[in-house]
Amino acid sequence: MISMELEAQQSTSCEKIGFSPWWMFTFFITILKKFHAKVARLFTKLKKIAEEDPRRVYHSFKVGLALTLVSIFYYVTPLFNGFGSSCMWAVLTVVVVMEFTVGATLGKGLNRTLATVLAGSLALGAHHLAELCGEKMEPILLGILVFILASAATFSRFIPRVKKRYDYGVTIFILTFSLVAVSSYRVDEVIPLAHQRASTIAVGVATCLCTTFFVFPVWAGEDLHKLTATNLEKLACFLQGLGDDYFQDKAKKENKVGEKKDYFQSYKSVLNSKPTEESLANFAKWEPGHNGFGFRHPWNQYLKIGASTRRCAYSTEALSAFLTACDSKPKPDPNDEVGTKIRSACAEMSSESAKALSDLASSIRTMSAPTLARQHMAAASAAAEKLKTVLLYSGSVAEIVHVATIGAILVEIVNCEHEIVGTV
Amino acid sequence: MISMELEAQQSTSCEKIGFSPWWMFTFFITILKKFHAKVARLFTKLKKIAEEDPRRVYHSFKVGLALTLVSIFYYVTPLFNGFGSSCMWAVLTVVVVMEFTVGATLGKGLNRTLATVLAGSLALGAHHLAELCGEKMEPILLGILVFILASAATFSRFIPRVKKRYDYGVTIFILTFSLVAVSSYRVDEVIPLAHQRASTIAVGVATCLCTTFFVFPVWAGEDLHKLTATNLEKLACFLQGLGDDYFQDKAKKENKVGEKKDYFQSYKSVLNSKPTEESLANFAKWEPGHNGFGFRHPWNQYLKIGASTRRCAYSTEALSAFLTACDSKPKPDPNDEVGTKIRSACAEMSSESAKALSDLASSIRTMSAPTLARQHMAAASAAAEKLKTVLLYSGSVAEIVHVATIGAILVEIVNCEHEIVGTV
Repeated sequence: MISMELEAQQSTSCEKIGFSPWWMFTFFITILKKFHAKVARLFTKLKKIAEEDPRRVYHSFKVGLALTLVSIFYYVTPLFNGFGSSCMWAVLTVVVVMEFTVGATLGKGLNRTLATVLAGSLALGAHHLAELCGEKMEPILLGILVFILASAATFSRFIPRVKKRYDYGVTIFILTFSLVAVSSYRVDEVIPLAHQRASTIAVGVATCLCTTFFVFPVWAGEDLHKLTATNLEKLACFLQGLGDDYFQDKAKKENKVGEKKDYFQSYKSVLNSKPTEESLANFAKWEPGHNGFGFRHPWNQYLKIGASTRRCAYSTEALSAFLTACDSKPKPDPNDEVGTKIRSACAEMSSESAKALSDLASSIRTMSAPTLARQHMAAASAAAEKLKTVLLYSGSVAEIVHVATIGAILVEIVNCEHEIVGTV
Repeated sequence: MISMELEAQQSTSCEKIGFSPWWMFTFFITILKKFHAKVARLFTKLKKIAEEDPRRVYHSFKVGLALTLVSIFYYVTPLFNGFGSSCMWAVLTVVVVMEFTVGATLGKGLNRTLATVLAGSLALGAHHLAELCGEKMEPILLGILVFILASAATFSRFIPRVKKRYDYGVTIFILTFSLVAVSSYRVDEVIPLAHQRASTIAVGVATCLCTTFFVFPVWAGEDLHKLTATNLEKLACFLQGLGDDYFQDKAKKENKVGEKKDYFQSYKSVLNSKPTEESLANFAKWEPGHNGFGFRHPWNQYLKIGASTRRCAYSTEALSAFLTACDSKPKPDPNDEVGTKIRSACAEMSSESAKALSDLASSIRTMSAPTLARQHMAAASAAAEKLKTVLLYSGSVAEIVHVATIGAILVEIVNCEHEIVGTV
C-alpha cells in the first residue's frame, strides 16, 4: 500500500514538473523537430517523384504557363471589354482540359468543344420551344426537358464505348445544356452570351493545345510503345535469371548470388499493366502523327501484345510461387536420364525464350522487324517439343508428371487460400 | 476479249439503271432498313445494360432530379435575386459532383467544398497583397502567384496519396484560386461575390448529397463486399469443376459434359479486378455507417483478400492454360501406385479448397465467422502435405517432377510468346 502511495505522489510531482516552462520548451523543440523531419521526408519524396520522370516537373510548369497566358484576358482592358465575365470560361477550360499527355489534352479539348457546340444549339432550340408555350409554362417545360436530357445522357455513360472515349464530352453536354437552357429563362439576349462563351472556351482549348504541343510535348503513344517494350524486357529478365540460377553449372551460378531477388520481383508490375495500357492506347488514338508514329498507327496491336505479355506473366507468377515454395529443391541425380533430358530442355527454353523476348523488345524500340526473335523462338519451341516427347513417350512418367504438375500448382493455390482464410 | 467488253457494257448499263427513280427508292429503303436495324441493336444493348444493373437507371433519373431541383433557383424570382448569376455554380456543381455511389459523391462533394473554401481564402489574401503593391504591379504579381500555385498544386497530383484521394480537390483548388485571384482584378467587391459562389456551391453539394443518400442509395462499400465474395465464388467454381472433371470417376463426369467451358472462363474477370477494388475501397472510406458496415469498417482488409484472391487466380490461369494445352492427357495407369496417390491428393485438394472458398464467400456475404472453412482448409493442407511427401520421398520421381513442373509452365510461357512474336 505504502509503495503505491509513494508512486502516486511521485507521479503527481512529475506532472507538476511537466507544466514548468522548461517542459514547455522541450515540448516545442520536440514538435519542431518532428515537423522538420516530416517536411524533410516530404521533400525527399517530391524529389524522388521528380527524378523518376522529369516530365512531371515540366508538366506542372506548363499548367502554370497556360493559366497565366489565359488570365491575360482579364488584365488587358480591350480584351476584357470584348468578352466580359465570360473570360472565366477560358480559365475554367484550361484547368480541366490540361492533361499530362498530348492525346489526353486533345481528346478532352475536342470532347469539350464538340459537346459545348452541340448542347448549346440544342439548348437554344429548347429555349425557343419553351418561349412559344407562354410565360407560365416556360419553366415547367424547361424543367422537363432538362430532366429528360440529363437522365438520357447520364444513362449513355454506362455504354462501355461512350464511357471509354466520350465520358468527359457527355459531362460537358449535360453541363452546357442545363446552364444554357435554364439561364435562358433569366437572360434576354441568349445568342450573344452563347457566342461569348463558345469563343472563350475555344480560346481556352487553343491555349491548352499550344502549350501541350509546343512545350516539351508528352506523347501517350510513345509512352505506350516504351511500356510494351519494357514489359517484354522484364519478362526476359526473369527467364534469363531463372535459366542462370536453376539450370546452369555451378561456376556461373556462384557469381550471381544476391541478384536472385531482383529478377523475382521485376515482372510483378506487368501483372497489373492492363488499365495503364488501355488508357494510354485510348489517348494515343487522339494524337496526330509524331516521331515516326503515323496518325492511324495500329495502337490496338499494342493492346494485343500487352494481353499476351500479361498471360506470360501469369504463368511466370505461378512458376515463381512454385520455386519460392520449394526452396529446398531436390538435388539432381546425374544418373537419371529422363531428369537430365528435362533439365536440358528447360535450360534451353528459358534462355532461348529470354533472348527472343529481348530481341522483340529491342525491335519494338527501334521499330524494325525482329531479326533473331524467330530463330530463338524456333529453338525454344524445339526444346518445348523435346520436353513434350520426353514426357509423353516415357511411359508411366508421363502420367505422373501430368498429375504432379496439376498437383504442384494446386498446392500454390492452397497456399494462397491460407492467406485469405487468415484475413477473413 | 469479247466477253470482257460485253461485261464492261453490261456494267455501264447497270450503272445507268442505277440512277433511275426506282433505284433511288430502293436505295432509301435499304438505308432506312439499315438504320432501323442499328437503332434496334442499340435499344437491345441499352436494355441489356439496364437489366444487368437496374441501379444504373435509377442513377440516371437521380441526376435528372438533382439538376431539376437545383434549377429551381433560376425559376423562383426571390431566390434568383438573392444569388444572381452565381446560381450557375449550383448547376455546375451538381453536374460534376453527382456520382454513381454515395462514397464517390461524398468524396467529391467534400473535396469540392474544402478546396473552394481554402483556395478562395488564399486568393483573397493574394488579392489584398497585390493591391498593396500598386496598380501597375498588381497584374504582374497576380500572374506570378497564379503561376507558382498552379504549378505546385499540379505537381502535388503526382504524389500517389494525393492522386488517390484528393485529385479532384486539387483541380478545384487550382480552379478557384485562379478564378478568384484573377477576376479580383476586375471586380470591385470581391467578398460578396466569393460569399455568393461559396453558398451556391454548398447548395449544389447539399442537393447532390440528399439525392444520393435518400433516393435509392448505392453504397460503394456494399459493392466491394459483394465483389470480394463473388470473386471467391468464381475461384471455388473453377476448383470444383476441375475436381469433378479431372479426378472424379466416369459416371459423375458424363453428367457434366458441356459445363466445362463455363468454369474455364468464370474466373478470368478476377485477374483484372485490382483497379475496380481499389476505387471501390477508396470511395467506401468516405461513406458513413450503413447496413451493418461501420464508418471505420476495415476496407483495407478487403484489398488484402483481393490481392490473395488475385494471386490464386494467377496460378489458376497457369493451370487452366496447362490443361487446355494438354487436351490429350495420358490415361491413368491403375497399377501405378505413385500416380494414384498423386491423383487422390489432387482430388482432395481441389474439392476441399473449393468448399473452403465457398464457405468463406458465404461467410463474407452473411458477415459471420467462417464455420467450416478452417476445417476444409485443414483437409486441403493435409492433402498438400501428402502430395509433398509423395513427391519428396519417392526418390528419383521427386527430381523429375520438380523439373517437369517448371518445364510444363515454361512450355506455357513459350506458347504465349509465340502469340507475341506473331503480333509484333
